[in-house]
Amino acid sequence: MTISDIAKMAGVSSAAVSRYLNGGPLSEQKRAAIHEVVEKTGYRPDTAAQTLRTGKVNQVGVIAPSIGSQSVGQITAGIASELDAKSYLMLLGNTELDAQRELGYLTAMQRNHVAGIILLGSYYTPQLAQALKNCRVPVVVTGQRFQDVACVYNDDRTAARELAQRMLDHGRKRIVYIGGTERDDATGVQRREGVQDALNAAGLNGEQMPRICCNAFTMEEGQRCMQELLVRCPDLDGVVCVTDTVAFGAMRALREAGRHVGQDVGLAGVGDSWAGSMMEPGLATVRFYQKQVGQEAARILLQMLEENGSSGPVRQVTLGYQIMERGSL
Amino acid sequence: MTISDIAKMAGVSSAAVSRYLNGGPLSEQKRAAIHEVVEKTGYRPDTAAQTLRTGKVNQVGVIAPSIGSQSVGQITAGIASELDAKSYLMLLGNTELDAQRELGYLTAMQRNHVAGIILLGSYYTPQLAQALKNCRVPVVVTGQRFQDVACVYNDDRTAARELAQRMLDHGRKRIVYIGGTERDDATGVQRREGVQDALNAAGLNGEQMPRICCNAFTMEEGQRCMQELLVRCPDLDGVVCVTDTVAFGAMRALREAGRHVGQDVGLAGVGDSWAGSMMEPGLATVRFYQKQVGQEAARILLQMLEENGSSGPVRQVTLGYQIMERGSL
Repeated sequence: MTISDIAKMAGVSSAAVSRYLNGGPLSEQKRAAIHEVVEKTGYRPDTAAQTLRTGKVNQVGVIAPSIGSQSVGQITAGIASELDAKSYLMLLGNTELDAQRELGYLTAMQRNHVAGIILLGSYYTPQLAQALKNCRVPVVVTGQRFQDVACVYNDDRTAARELAQRMLDHGRKRIVYIGGTERDDATGVQRREGVQDALNAAGLNGEQMPRICCNAFTMEEGQRCMQELLVRCPDLDGVVCVTDTVAFGAMRALREAGRHVGQDVGLAGVGDSWAGSMMEPGLATVRFYQKQVGQEAARILLQMLEENGSSGPVRQVTLGYQIMERGSL
Repeated sequence: MTISDIAKMAGVSSAAVSRYLNGGPLSEQKRAAIHEVVEKTGYRPDTAAQTLRTGKVNQVGVIAPSIGSQSVGQITAGIASELDAKSYLMLLGNTELDAQRELGYLTAMQRNHVAGIILLGSYYTPQLAQALKNCRVPVVVTGQRFQDVACVYNDDRTAARELAQRMLDHGRKRIVYIGGTERDDATGVQRREGVQDALNAAGLNGEQMPRICCNAFTMEEGQRCMQELLVRCPDLDGVVCVTDTVAFGAMRALREAGRHVGQDVGLAGVGDSWAGSMMEPGLATVRFYQKQVGQEAARILLQMLEENGSSGPVRQVTLGYQIMERGSL
């Protein structure tokens, strides 16, 4: 498929298609005709040749739920290192977990002729699924396993299972769980199920595990949820939290209640926030390799760009993790 | 100055200038001729009209020293919120403190027709000064006060002075300092001078203050520098650190040496890392308003874009700070 094929199908000149692709001036009628053909055929220009011709550097779009967070910072740093090595620029969109903004960025970035898009996944919705399916450029999703899309994600379920297993090994028997919204499959569903798997394997009833869902991954929410669980289950002897930040809040509530973390109650988080290694006792947690997640996602995207849209099998990659066993267990 | 003025001066057609500005196909000869005129006149196209014509969303370039760090995350989140409200996309470059990459991004972003650039400032070099002067689009610098450039920065010197003053108020007399490279004026020079100002005002000789320069703002470096200072000045009773992360490392070294932070030795950092509020004792520090720094920088840039290059006075804005007095003092 070449520019002149597109031109013939749209009934316009090759120069018009070229202007369309480069964002040059064009009548609305011609723009619409070309747009329809490009949509229908899934045509993507050879971006390397385009760079040579125009002097522009190609861009990759990155859509993130919250660029202020530590894990997102690590993932984007990983993406940036790979893109930089291949002389791509990063067009960054920050959604603040707003689904409309996420869809808006997907559209705007395609309009701005990005070569491809990396989406730091959060919630999966039918609208997002449709938008990803309609995307005219290759997409790689990180942090979530979305159907039929290239993904780089962490094995949240197995990691949470092993973390809870370690807590059980320390003799904890009445383990409770502070989780996150189940609209987020990786952090909400997979981590909860992993903890329940461990309880079931130990002959405890995982379905009956007392649990609560925090509204945001903040210390304040961790503290509030822990206070509530302490009222509901005063004899609890272990707490697994969906993230380290939530666990720091839980730690505060446990201290206020006169409980001694690492002694009469075990505590664990997920994410290996660097602060957890400095606490006394240190916070047991799961280390994911977030920078490598970003690097891997960028490498897969760049490979898809080199293959230039030939529809090979969809790559879905899961990266390992490490249990950080510290004094809080 | 219009496209047809540029066309006349370059001896080409208006359509050629338009193609140049939109990155369309063009002979190298014409491109060079137009480029020379655009450089000479400092011409910038009306980007809003351009968006209407091409369907593309305008982009603002953001160049950051290290997108994995907490403060950079906050600044970029602030920038993103303002750009998003005005429907600009953010083109992000991560330099990892590499001066060549910083210059490379400045060039590449202009080639990609960003409307303006926000540079999260680190080191000031003659090359950077020249590149900023030659920049064809408006630039705003954050975190540093660079001459003749719009800036949004923190009052590092006054903040460090007040922080050290608080430590003196706690009766500390033999204060030492762990600083950063003086190639970075804000964190390297200004913070050190602020601490020395406080000592001088208290009748202690600030010039004689024992100090050491860490090679990176990491816990490991903070720990190493603290160990060295403990050997050089075993009777020290107060430590001010250039950042919180460095202070966390210093805290570790002090503990290992059997010193009790907040009791026989005072400790303070700068930056209000959220981990500092969770420690026991809490880490005294300076809170800067980094998200607001980003927002303010974006607002100034957008205002410059609206004024469309009319050379008004250069805005340099300093934002306030807050001393967070906690148990470690």
